[in-house]
Amino acid sequence: MRLSKYFIPTLKENPIDAKITSHRLMIRAGMIRQINSGIYSFLPLGLKVLQKISDIIRKNMADISCNEILMPIIQPKELWLESKRYDSYGQEMLRMKDRHERDMLFGPTHEEVMTDIFRKNITSYKDLPKSFYQIQTKFRDEIRPRFGVMRAREFMMKDAYSFDLNFNQAKKTYDQFYQIYFKIFQELGLDAIAVRAETGAIGGDLSHEFHVLAETGESVIYYDQKFDQLKGNINQDNIDELQNLYSAADDMYDEKNCPISKENIKSHRSIEVGHIFHFGDKYSKALEASVTNNEGKKIYPLMGSYGIGVSRLIAAIIEANNDKNGIIWPEEITPFDIHLVNLKPENEECKKICDDLYQKLKATKDVLYDDISAGIGVKLSNADLIGIPTQIIIGPKSIKEGHAEVKNRRSGKKENVKIEEVRAV
Amino acid sequence: MRLSKYFIPTLKENPIDAKITSHRLMIRAGMIRQINSGIYSFLPLGLKVLQKISDIIRKNMADISCNEILMPIIQPKELWLESKRYDSYGQEMLRMKDRHERDMLFGPTHEEVMTDIFRKNITSYKDLPKSFYQIQTKFRDEIRPRFGVMRAREFMMKDAYSFDLNFNQAKKTYDQFYQIYFKIFQELGLDAIAVRAETGAIGGDLSHEFHVLAETGESVIYYDQKFDQLKGNINQDNIDELQNLYSAADDMYDEKNCPISKENIKSHRSIEVGHIFHFGDKYSKALEASVTNNEGKKIYPLMGSYGIGVSRLIAAIIEANNDKNGIIWPEEITPFDIHLVNLKPENEECKKICDDLYQKLKATKDVLYDDISAGIGVKLSNADLIGIPTQIIIGPKSIKEGHAEVKNRRSGKKENVKIEEVRAV
Repeated sequence: MRLSKYFIPTLKENPIDAKITSHRLMIRAGMIRQINSGIYSFLPLGLKVLQKISDIIRKNMADISCNEILMPIIQPKELWLESKRYDSYGQEMLRMKDRHERDMLFGPTHEEVMTDIFRKNITSYKDLPKSFYQIQTKFRDEIRPRFGVMRAREFMMKDAYSFDLNFNQAKKTYDQFYQIYFKIFQELGLDAIAVRAETGAIGGDLSHEFHVLAETGESVIYYDQKFDQLKGNINQDNIDELQNLYSAADDMYDEKNCPISKENIKSHRSIEVGHIFHFGDKYSKALEASVTNNEGKKIYPLMGSYGIGVSRLIAAIIEANNDKNGIIWPEEITPFDIHLVNLKPENEECKKICDDLYQKLKATKDVLYDDISAGIGVKLSNADLIGIPTQIIIGPKSIKEGHAEVKNRRSGKKENVKIEEVRAV
Repeated sequence: MRLSKYFIPTLKENPIDAKITSHRLMIRAGMIRQINSGIYSFLPLGLKVLQKISDIIRKNMADISCNEILMPIIQPKELWLESKRYDSYGQEMLRMKDRHERDMLFGPTHEEVMTDIFRKNITSYKDLPKSFYQIQTKFRDEIRPRFGVMRAREFMMKDAYSFDLNFNQAKKTYDQFYQIYFKIFQELGLDAIAVRAETGAIGGDLSHEFHVLAETGESVIYYDQKFDQLKGNINQDNIDELQNLYSAADDMYDEKNCPISKENIKSHRSIEVGHIFHFGDKYSKALEASVTNNEGKKIYPLMGSYGIGVSRLIAAIIEANNDKNGIIWPEEITPFDIHLVNLKPENEECKKICDDLYQKLKATKDVLYDDISAGIGVKLSNADLIGIPTQIIIGPKSIKEGHAEVKNRRSGKKENVKIEEVRAV
């Protein structure tokens, strides 16, 4: 991608209202722009990362045969009266009337719609187990939106829903999601911990929050150190032990009454990026979603729901990967592989060599090609700010010496490589 | 994809409230389900087609260096006061108050937000021309939503916006979109006509509607027969002639006062699927979005907007491709390439042969594998209903004879092919 045709409106100064690193860097690197409190536009670079995260999630959902669907954003009040959540959901739900004065709402979550689709289309035990997910824009009217996409009102979420015939099967499904969540976060270059959680507004009796570790995280988690040994190799034999290990976010942690001795507790700052629930027949019963079992008897399927904060993950990745000069994208999720910087596009020779190299590199790699006229200092600091893992820097001086400067953004290590030997690696 | 793990809730009977072919078939083939008047869920098969259409649009937008972004769904009233459209937009705009009693709305279109992003981030002529697009859920509160996704309240749209320095450049951009729209519809397997249009609520002075031809279309278009000669080879020399050819939708056509003689007029039923506008400085002036030109003077960029009804296109494709038995997907956009039908999954030999064939075929093609227990008649009529271009049908009888039946859904032609010679073609 030629920068001259792209749109990355970088900023030199820190925006004054951005209090955390990821918010500052996403604004400065031209990834997002706010339009209203807690409501953001994703500009090309931000959207590209959002789509890469979505692709990794899609691939993993397909691996556990979870079917992608897309439910409506606008939902009718009536479904929420059936589940008895319309009043209890409170002010976080954005409510409105349509032109015919019917009460509608902007879906903050989709248990009701999902259960409605289920009851109208699935009637036999033969069709179970089944699970579904969507990647979709949600709106939750937070009282104090802040920290950019970390606590936004409008945000992107992956929400999945499962239906099973009995608890054993439902627990298997729950474990499948539990396990694949670790895989997803790993593929995003993140280190995750699952914290046993309260079920809250969703209801039910089994629930875990997924936190990723980051020095600048919003909360602190405390957890049994056994976690780190077990999570590398989750299997049917150890998953129950793992799920029941002690862990707590800071608001629940009480040093005095903690069941684990102090030397066996680890703590780390973290960011919550996922939440999974098993809630049994709460919604299937409330919405009368039943199937016939193999004895012809009516039963209510047991359900779970499984969320990942897709847009929030961008912030979490940046919180875990940055330095004083800007973002440092993990290879797994970087918006481009290579940032080719032409220090002097007005120089004919420089332009020709860089254009040729761009053609060669982009055959196998995703290259951001800085071909615009700007000061050398601006170009180099923008390259560090945007944070593509490999920078290839070429100017009249390096051409005279016959080499390009190849810089590793993470280590900061620079290497001179003969121009004809520069390759996409 | 194994049908046993997928979710295609087909219906044998026509839904009584579905009045047009595409609506009937999308419901019957389990692609969509209504949750409220004009509001639909996309089930796996429907979403898959939606994503394929989106991919084709994305590829073509990239070809004209149009940058993908994602603007917010919820917008503040204030921007619409600046453009003076808040009151005039009327009841189609879904309005609401947030928890702090601020007036917000569900974006029916994004000229205001786009212009706001522009004015806050682009200040120099050097950054122009630039264009942006998004693929996003819109809501327009139609008074009488009907015909499924053809006239829905919540729908998926591709909306693009362009910024240029002067009319010549803006006309070039307009022509670029005009031309690429024909390419997009062609890649979707559709035959399109561009009709010169009124600019209406968007404002401005140059506008074309794109219609695709379909026997069961909602409107009739009348157009100069020269259109068919010229559109096959659009270039800089003939584009103005093409854009100014006589054409009119039925509500504007008046046989008596038509400037073209009757023998030179063609007419066809059609469906509107796109609309492009050039509207000059209407929004840039209203929102004070200016840039400095090369003489240091303040100028207002000229804008255009370019829409495609992404979810509506599914209906248009089906209206143009169906028979009494169901959908007939064009190769370009079919959700799967091959529908492998095992007529007797309970039969061990049949299962083994079909499983092996599925493994072989799916290495190079996207295969829907009907591996569920159901009657032969149901399986075959569902295959026709779902409309995958190639059906490969295997049962105990054909195995005994050593062949599979390969059926072309469009021609209906069946051919016996030796099982070991069945290949993904």
